[in-house]
Amino acid sequence: MRNIKLTIQYDGTDFSGWQVQKNTPTIQGLIEKAILIVTGEETRLTGAGRTDAGVHALDQRATFKTGSTLDPPVLSRALNANLPMDIRIIACEECEDDFHPRYNAKNKTYTYLICRDVPFSVFLRRFSLMCTYSLDVQAMDAAGPLITGRHDFSSFRASGCSAKNPVREIYTISVLEVGSVDFMGFTFKTPLLKISIQANAFLRHMARNIVGTLMEVGKGRIPPEEMTAILESKNRDAAGPTAPACGLFLETINY
Amino acid sequence: MRNIKLTIQYDGTDFSGWQVQKNTPTIQGLIEKAILIVTGEETRLTGAGRTDAGVHALDQRATFKTGSTLDPPVLSRALNANLPMDIRIIACEECEDDFHPRYNAKNKTYTYLICRDVPFSVFLRRFSLMCTYSLDVQAMDAAGPLITGRHDFSSFRASGCSAKNPVREIYTISVLEVGSVDFMGFTFKTPLLKISIQANAFLRHMARNIVGTLMEVGKGRIPPEEMTAILESKNRDAAGPTAPACGLFLETINY
Repeated sequence: MRNIKLTIQYDGTDFSGWQVQKNTPTIQGLIEKAILIVTGEETRLTGAGRTDAGVHALDQRATFKTGSTLDPPVLSRALNANLPMDIRIIACEECEDDFHPRYNAKNKTYTYLICRDVPFSVFLRRFSLMCTYSLDVQAMDAAGPLITGRHDFSSFRASGCSAKNPVREIYTISVLEVGSVDFMGFTFKTPLLKISIQANAFLRHMARNIVGTLMEVGKGRIPPEEMTAILESKNRDAAGPTAPACGLFLETINY
Repeated sequence: MRNIKLTIQYDGTDFSGWQVQKNTPTIQGLIEKAILIVTGEETRLTGAGRTDAGVHALDQRATFKTGSTLDPPVLSRALNANLPMDIRIIACEECEDDFHPRYNAKNKTYTYLICRDVPFSVFLRRFSLMCTYSLDVQAMDAAGPLITGRHDFSSFRASGCSAKNPVREIYTISVLEVGSVDFMGFTFKTPLLKISIQANAFLRHMARNIVGTLMEVGKGRIPPEEMTAILESKNRDAAGPTAPACGLFLETINY
């Protein structure tokens, strides 16, 4: 059996997340179905991370074993022909037998987009959180670095998280505001906030819970310096709410 | 009765175009329904142009008469609260009684986006035509200016067009290729072709028929210099096919 590595891009808006579920379209489920159509094999796709319903991916990775002898470019085209247009295989290659897209990942970057002006958001709304209130970007940018490093991230972990160990290492958190949005050659005069988090791995909802907490800082409800106490409390209730999925992108995975 | 002018933005993907139709959602129909909810008045919205099903607008304009005394900002917020998120009123003001969004327009610009690489188009596909073949951009850019000026555009007019006079004046046609796409702070390494047409007004499907013909030039099926003969033939069959709606944006209207 060959081990095939896929690089996948998806607009998560219309799917129920990565993981296979019965009676609802998921990225994993739809790709497994495409593999069955193309190779005739029932297989399990192993993803680098389980993105939630509505979360997008620029650079998701996954592997599957196959007896098929199809060349990777042919396999890639055949899978794309059997996938909805919102999911695309953008690279396909044979990899070493023991390569694991999650365990072998050195780090992942999730990026969250917040669009600061509702009326201009028609073209941006699928891909950003629309926020009508103003946010103190400086305070948010000061708050982020206070939780970088190797820590128990229980305060930012969803209750249903299945990870045995809540310790993760965040390398960087950056909060950047740009005054206008470039959108396919058009420029929208609406501020856009871009929050990027790079870590060795993420607990369930960790990126969205950090963003939700930073937004509370931005609104002035949590002072930036309180981030340290929130982290140390290891108590989910101490942190802010889970930011909506639509603004989140799995941006890069480094191996 | 006051005359109210709206500036409207929409992602046309999920609508059956501008014009009211029975049993199918249209931009005009949904805004008239929102006006009815907000003011209690059945009214007819007059648009600056009837965009086709799937066509987007960055800057559509429309007027309606109302007995309502609501302040324009309040009216705008109330209409947006009763519209789907893919349609937004981005400006609302009282205007002179005799202002007509179509007759008073000096010129309109339609812009068409062509994305040159399928696999990377997950985030771009709602807003561009995906094209797998290569196009000779230089030939297309040479062909466009051959049909600018005041002419009978019957060769680029849909059969069902209701305009009495097929004469229009095109001021500029530009064809521009950029090597990568800026998308909300992300960069996609896929070439993007941007075709912009500015004219005093457009016949039905005129922008899409011009784009479809320029694409035939780009494929090498029509020599650029043949544009003049196509225009002069006043024969729709001489020109290329109608380009799909998804790539077209009503970009600006000048008064």
